[in-house]
Amino acid sequence: MRNAYTAQLGDLNADLCDLATGAEEAMREASRALLTADLRAAEEVIARGESLAVLGAHCEDEAVKVLALQAPVAADLRRVFSAVRISSDLARMVGLSVHVAEAARRRFPDPIVPEDLTEPFEEMARLCQEMCALVVQALRSSELDDIEELDRMDDRVDELKSLVVDRVVADDATNVVNAVDVALLGRYYERYADQIVDVASRIVFFVSGRKH
Amino acid sequence: MRNAYTAQLGDLNADLCDLATGAEEAMREASRALLTADLRAAEEVIARGESLAVLGAHCEDEAVKVLALQAPVAADLRRVFSAVRISSDLARMVGLSVHVAEAARRRFPDPIVPEDLTEPFEEMARLCQEMCALVVQALRSSELDDIEELDRMDDRVDELKSLVVDRVVADDATNVVNAVDVALLGRYYERYADQIVDVASRIVFFVSGRKH
Repeated sequence: MRNAYTAQLGDLNADLCDLATGAEEAMREASRALLTADLRAAEEVIARGESLAVLGAHCEDEAVKVLALQAPVAADLRRVFSAVRISSDLARMVGLSVHVAEAARRRFPDPIVPEDLTEPFEEMARLCQEMCALVVQALRSSELDDIEELDRMDDRVDELKSLVVDRVVADDATNVVNAVDVALLGRYYERYADQIVDVASRIVFFVSGRKH
Repeated sequence: MRNAYTAQLGDLNADLCDLATGAEEAMREASRALLTADLRAAEEVIARGESLAVLGAHCEDEAVKVLALQAPVAADLRRVFSAVRISSDLARMVGLSVHVAEAARRRFPDPIVPEDLTEPFEEMARLCQEMCALVVQALRSSELDDIEELDRMDDRVDELKSLVVDRVVADDATNVVNAVDVALLGRYYERYADQIVDVASRIVFFVSGRKH
């Protein structure tokens, strides 16, 4: 019984790691689709989003099952409980990546991001990917050292988001369609980074019992 | 012991109802602040958002405590488990209301919503409020009849959001700042309605065991 239980907890964590890796890849590919007007990459992200949503629901079902059948206590209870919230946050991150991909598909073959904003968008995309990679690593290892970095990275994403919105609004040459797209896209990256910070605070809670 | 347990479950549900009512009021007042350029209402929503965030965290702590100390089974387990997700969704709804209020404050005393879009914004605001009221009622009563309405109402919010974005983009007289604001605001209402649908599916799950 104990062994089956340990295996169940291990499976749940492995599924969460897969979901987190999926969320990382989804935003990476969606950003590539966006910044290189790559229709095929956009469509792959959208299709992959569906299967990741199924994986997210599966994680939650697994967590409910462990709670119902094993009634875990203390650290295990925290872990299972956190898994529910983490799977929900990760599923939202996938959803945000899909929104980015949908924007790229909607405007294809036109580029959405004006040339002078390519760099801040690339930086937001890179930060989101690095942040997500840190979370995957923390999930795998239960090591918390690196996730201290996340708050600083999240602040930088917020800064970049404000920068692109301010700049697109200030530019007289901007057309309105583009400005709206840029503002919404900035918001998707900002939310994605926020969700990563939420996931990190859940990991801190289940590893250490501390509230982040 | 049983009595303390029943009382704990009752308290948790009462706190969730308060949080849901808070989320309903927050969006109602934020919409009023937005559509009548009422700075004071905006500031009240922003201040209230802080205390509702504390209530959300409290709901979650309560749920963890019940799980840890009482190890509920079957229907009670579903209920406690759902409470965690519901409190997270409701907290996000409060956060979205605060975003609306912040937009109103940022542009005060200028109106943000162009005159010809007042009506669709009012309808989005009204729908969000009615949807949230249905959820509060379902939480209180565990009656599911009325929440069948939510999907249709959510579709209408999505429709209105697309309408305001399309219209603001098509209008040559729109300035870019306004277009960006309108697009982001539309997005906040859309997300708010989505979150209500999520909450409703959690309520269906805990009351009936069915996945919505």
